[in-house]
Amino acid sequence: MTDQSSSPSAALRQLLISYADANYPSTRIEYLPHPPSPLEFLRIVSRNRPMIIRNAMTDWPAMGAGDGDKKWTVEYLKQQMGNAEVAVAETPLGNADSIIEHEGAEYFVKPCTRPHPFSNFLTDLISTNTTPNPSTILYAQSQDSNLTHEYTALALDVPPAIPWASIALDQPVPDALNLWIGNHHSVSSLHKDPYQNLYGVVLGTKIFTLINPFGVAAAQEKKVLNATYVKRDDGEFVVTKDQITSWGGQDALESTITWPARDLEHYFSLPDDERNMALEQIADDDPLKWVKLSTPMRVEVHAGEMLYLPALWYHQVAQRVDETEDVCVAVNYWYDMDFAGPFVSTASFVRNMTLLALKSEQEQDSQSLA
Amino acid sequence: MTDQSSSPSAALRQLLISYADANYPSTRIEYLPHPPSPLEFLRIVSRNRPMIIRNAMTDWPAMGAGDGDKKWTVEYLKQQMGNAEVAVAETPLGNADSIIEHEGAEYFVKPCTRPHPFSNFLTDLISTNTTPNPSTILYAQSQDSNLTHEYTALALDVPPAIPWASIALDQPVPDALNLWIGNHHSVSSLHKDPYQNLYGVVLGTKIFTLINPFGVAAAQEKKVLNATYVKRDDGEFVVTKDQITSWGGQDALESTITWPARDLEHYFSLPDDERNMALEQIADDDPLKWVKLSTPMRVEVHAGEMLYLPALWYHQVAQRVDETEDVCVAVNYWYDMDFAGPFVSTASFVRNMTLLALKSEQEQDSQSLA
Repeated sequence: MTDQSSSPSAALRQLLISYADANYPSTRIEYLPHPPSPLEFLRIVSRNRPMIIRNAMTDWPAMGAGDGDKKWTVEYLKQQMGNAEVAVAETPLGNADSIIEHEGAEYFVKPCTRPHPFSNFLTDLISTNTTPNPSTILYAQSQDSNLTHEYTALALDVPPAIPWASIALDQPVPDALNLWIGNHHSVSSLHKDPYQNLYGVVLGTKIFTLINPFGVAAAQEKKVLNATYVKRDDGEFVVTKDQITSWGGQDALESTITWPARDLEHYFSLPDDERNMALEQIADDDPLKWVKLSTPMRVEVHAGEMLYLPALWYHQVAQRVDETEDVCVAVNYWYDMDFAGPFVSTASFVRNMTLLALKSEQEQDSQSLA
Repeated sequence: MTDQSSSPSAALRQLLISYADANYPSTRIEYLPHPPSPLEFLRIVSRNRPMIIRNAMTDWPAMGAGDGDKKWTVEYLKQQMGNAEVAVAETPLGNADSIIEHEGAEYFVKPCTRPHPFSNFLTDLISTNTTPNPSTILYAQSQDSNLTHEYTALALDVPPAIPWASIALDQPVPDALNLWIGNHHSVSSLHKDPYQNLYGVVLGTKIFTLINPFGVAAAQEKKVLNATYVKRDDGEFVVTKDQITSWGGQDALESTITWPARDLEHYFSLPDDERNMALEQIADDDPLKWVKLSTPMRVEVHAGEMLYLPALWYHQVAQRVDETEDVCVAVNYWYDMDFAGPFVSTASFVRNMTLLALKSEQEQDSQSLA
């Protein structure tokens, strides 16, 4: 292969290989059998490596606080919440917050979010579990610390903070505490958050596909137009461009966002030996070069397990419902990340250099075609 | 200025500015009034920022363990060590481990290291304090954990490990524990170490000039030949090229090393307003552009203070002797750095990209001259 300092592209390849080497095995997640001490957790955070923590939720009332019977059943949730209204994301294909092609252009489409009486929402959600293609896919996923307002009737069933994380990160409470209720029809697209995320699964299983913060080329970020699904009275979803209010008499401006466009299903359907090949052997003309070099991992987080999802890791999330309760329910804690130190500025440098490397690769490709 | 993603050079400039912003004020060191808890220290280590820690040595017997009278005086040191032989670095100009021009080529020259009876060494060292240009400059600086063998007679006067650092870094003892004895004639050249360094000053003052790990362009690394001072019988120092033993009948090879070549005196002699100008204003053709963008800091560490010098920070060290005892004595603890996580691989990527940026700047310069 090329000299590691001969071009941004060669240096980027070298970065991804050395990162994978230093964090070996980079495609396998580590498990902690018990919750860490604050000091142990800060070590994990310093390494910015994901981890599945077991037995971290045994004292949650939602989980039955250790007596084995979960408090959070569908019956209990309905009883506590009754007909209180909650915001529910509605989409035609389960595609909340993802890039969609529409009339020849690409859009980042946000779901149609509408209020539903909680009990009706749960009944409607469960009724679609066995439907192959429901016309509307429901997902309670408002990421605005919903447990502290919409779902106050359930808030006392989970701790307001994770003690070892609060101590380690020097933040008495997290920035947000979100409840997620859905089924297998919803799949979030690849994205990243500027938060240290602790994601506890109460019912069902979450399937996370993860790429480290330096896999910017693998994420294939694109600048696209912002849009929102609008649901017509006949139940049809219409992709509607977002408008920025005009200033000083100008025409309405179009609003754009940069968002990962990669779907990793193709990569995970490759035979094992191709996904696990030595990184040094990956050819420069392999169309999945950057994905392979970024060594994505796919992990299942089962009920009772908590995922530590480090800040700036790309993640794509699917889910399976609980066998008895027919829903998937999870709670996540977002702690602010530390912007000081070397991490944020170097991650951003890697991002800028990646855009440069990809641009120069494209130019070379078009020259060799010409 | 140019678009941040238009060239490696522009992206590097942007990295240095965003690093300085995220770690504001980037040119001023922070002080801790008391030693940190292990958790607090791990937070400091995670940020990879230098810090001066006060009152961290009050329980050291060397420091008098709190009763105010230092145990380590010249008289006590002589008494404990007697005529035991210690390795002493001898140089003509105080330039241990630095780049020297010699017969038209540049060399990284290691000092002539010879055994001295300890008492004689101290007497000889102190005798040169008032000499403007001594013919031989002495410095006890063997960095091989000398306190655990050469200086065992003094080892019980300092702790074998720093408890809060050992707990934070999960290392019962440091990798090395070094004693340094010298005067103002010795100045180490800019360099970096792959260690988390805790540097406690017992007598005198150490003056550290520091550049963060991303200031690779400021450090001006050069690949030069390895050499060693050999002291002739007449006391003259001769720069002698190191030879690698030849293999399989080949000629003896020349041995090289990559080492920072920058002396920062010129930068620190600039008027304050030029050193403190807004980073965005620094012109692309300013010959000190990369030094200024890397925001070097100069800090004095006085007796009783401990410097936390984070892994991979460039440092250049000068010293002043104690007013009463006429020597400068310090002890440092080297803890291994963590190679996992994002830091080492991204620091190395910044280094590779810096070499690329500097090369392309040089090419542009030579084109515009042609």
